[in-house]
Amino acid sequence: MKIVTTAAGMQRLARGWQGQGMKVGFVPTMGYLHAGHISLVERARRLVGRAGVVVVSIYVNPTQFAPHEDLAKYPRDFKRDSALCRAAGVDVIFAPPDPEMYPGRATGDYSTYVVEETLAQGMEGAARPTHFRGVTTVVAKLFHLVLPTVAVFGAKDWQQAAVVQRMVRDLNFPLRLVVAPTHREADGLAMSSRNKYLSAEERPQATILWRAMQRAKAAVREAENGAVAAAALKQELAALIATQPAARLDYVEFFDPATLRPVAEVRRGAQLALAVFVGRTRLIDNGRV
Amino acid sequence: MKIVTTAAGMQRLARGWQGQGMKVGFVPTMGYLHAGHISLVERARRLVGRAGVVVVSIYVNPTQFAPHEDLAKYPRDFKRDSALCRAAGVDVIFAPPDPEMYPGRATGDYSTYVVEETLAQGMEGAARPTHFRGVTTVVAKLFHLVLPTVAVFGAKDWQQAAVVQRMVRDLNFPLRLVVAPTHREADGLAMSSRNKYLSAEERPQATILWRAMQRAKAAVREAENGAVAAAALKQELAALIATQPAARLDYVEFFDPATLRPVAEVRRGAQLALAVFVGRTRLIDNGRV
Repeated sequence: MKIVTTAAGMQRLARGWQGQGMKVGFVPTMGYLHAGHISLVERARRLVGRAGVVVVSIYVNPTQFAPHEDLAKYPRDFKRDSALCRAAGVDVIFAPPDPEMYPGRATGDYSTYVVEETLAQGMEGAARPTHFRGVTTVVAKLFHLVLPTVAVFGAKDWQQAAVVQRMVRDLNFPLRLVVAPTHREADGLAMSSRNKYLSAEERPQATILWRAMQRAKAAVREAENGAVAAAALKQELAALIATQPAARLDYVEFFDPATLRPVAEVRRGAQLALAVFVGRTRLIDNGRV
Repeated sequence: MKIVTTAAGMQRLARGWQGQGMKVGFVPTMGYLHAGHISLVERARRLVGRAGVVVVSIYVNPTQFAPHEDLAKYPRDFKRDSALCRAAGVDVIFAPPDPEMYPGRATGDYSTYVVEETLAQGMEGAARPTHFRGVTTVVAKLFHLVLPTVAVFGAKDWQQAAVVQRMVRDLNFPLRLVVAPTHREADGLAMSSRNKYLSAEERPQATILWRAMQRAKAAVREAENGAVAAAALKQELAALIATQPAARLDYVEFFDPATLRPVAEVRRGAQLALAVFVGRTRLIDNGRV
């Protein structure tokens, strides 16, 4: 396994693969890897085969964090990440320091961004106004450096995957994007590097996101005509979440899984997404109703 | 020479070249080709060699025109363009219709843009607020469809070349950008597809841009300490341009050729850019002082 830390070095390697017509599978991450990330790596390997190359990027991207967010304390453990990647059969880790990705940004000399203006508006985009602009920009950069044939994103960040998919389509990136299912702990909590922030008291309460999703599914299943008013169901879930003393709902939304357009009537096949603070930790999750 | 009109067809072809490690030279144009364009094609050929591929795109990009601008009447002559490309040894013309480049744009289903926020602010960006966003977006798309090793832009649109160069650097596009010199008519008028709009009375007056540039050079050359106050020189050029009855100055700017930052003192090596309406035709030009 090779570890690459410069942008030029990564692109040189990628252009070499490209000139040889090799398939490249890419899993972009912010590190602090867990079983969810590893499942994406395994998916990438299946997609490119044994003869292909699997690249994992580990980069905590500053442009997707707002000033008050957890950039500085975002968990990092490169040694452990590196061991996990090696065990999972990763060929290359791309782990650039900030000045490699945004040279001159400190002096205002970095000035190009990719913006998606429709799917990025609601939910995470409303809660974190500059977040998706940072995501689309860094993903565009990483795509140009790694030159993947296929990129694998996790479904846990449903809106992120949809926004990146739209960017790939609109800007004609020459690659295929695959969205792989969310990995969960035994009690339903979606795997996330941020779960590490949860205290022993908070951890069991964090399953409220999963329980809220099950409640929504049950409500629709039990509805006489197979539909429930979104507003009423949101209120019900908000009340359920409020039963956990450490939990505070940020948003809950029901929407079309492809267009992300909110629905007024929740039926089978609608997508549910929620963001909940558990203590000071903000968790997101989503699922098909 | 091959003519490709679909995005998928162009990208398929480009990926084939890529897998074979072929060099690809790319000249993006809006068509209605003149000797300036052909000089860019020749430059591209020299850069990729006989074994390489030269692609010219012909696409009048709607997203870089404001509603009141000349999109609908922009001159088009594909037959003539095609003959000129063939004669110049072009291998592929990529000439997509709008729905290939912006599918769903009419119904609001296109939503991703590339924005450059510093170099694109002044001059053309100030005069045409959404212009560069359209340029960077379409150029990013074309780069992803043609997958060039090297792209050749003309120096006549100096700010455009600088903005695209910044985009290539910031977003790590895997290609080299070359800026080739402006081609001029015998009397100094920069070649432009828009020169066609000029009436017989306007055509000789259009040389005022070239004459203004010569005047600026002379002023700096004759200055005792090699420097002239930009404000005074702008006034002088404005007065010179006003001597032509059909001419109306839009802007004149002196700036650093790399950063595009305006300079207060004009010295040798500064860049001068101007935009002048001659009748209803808006012409731009620029040159090193």
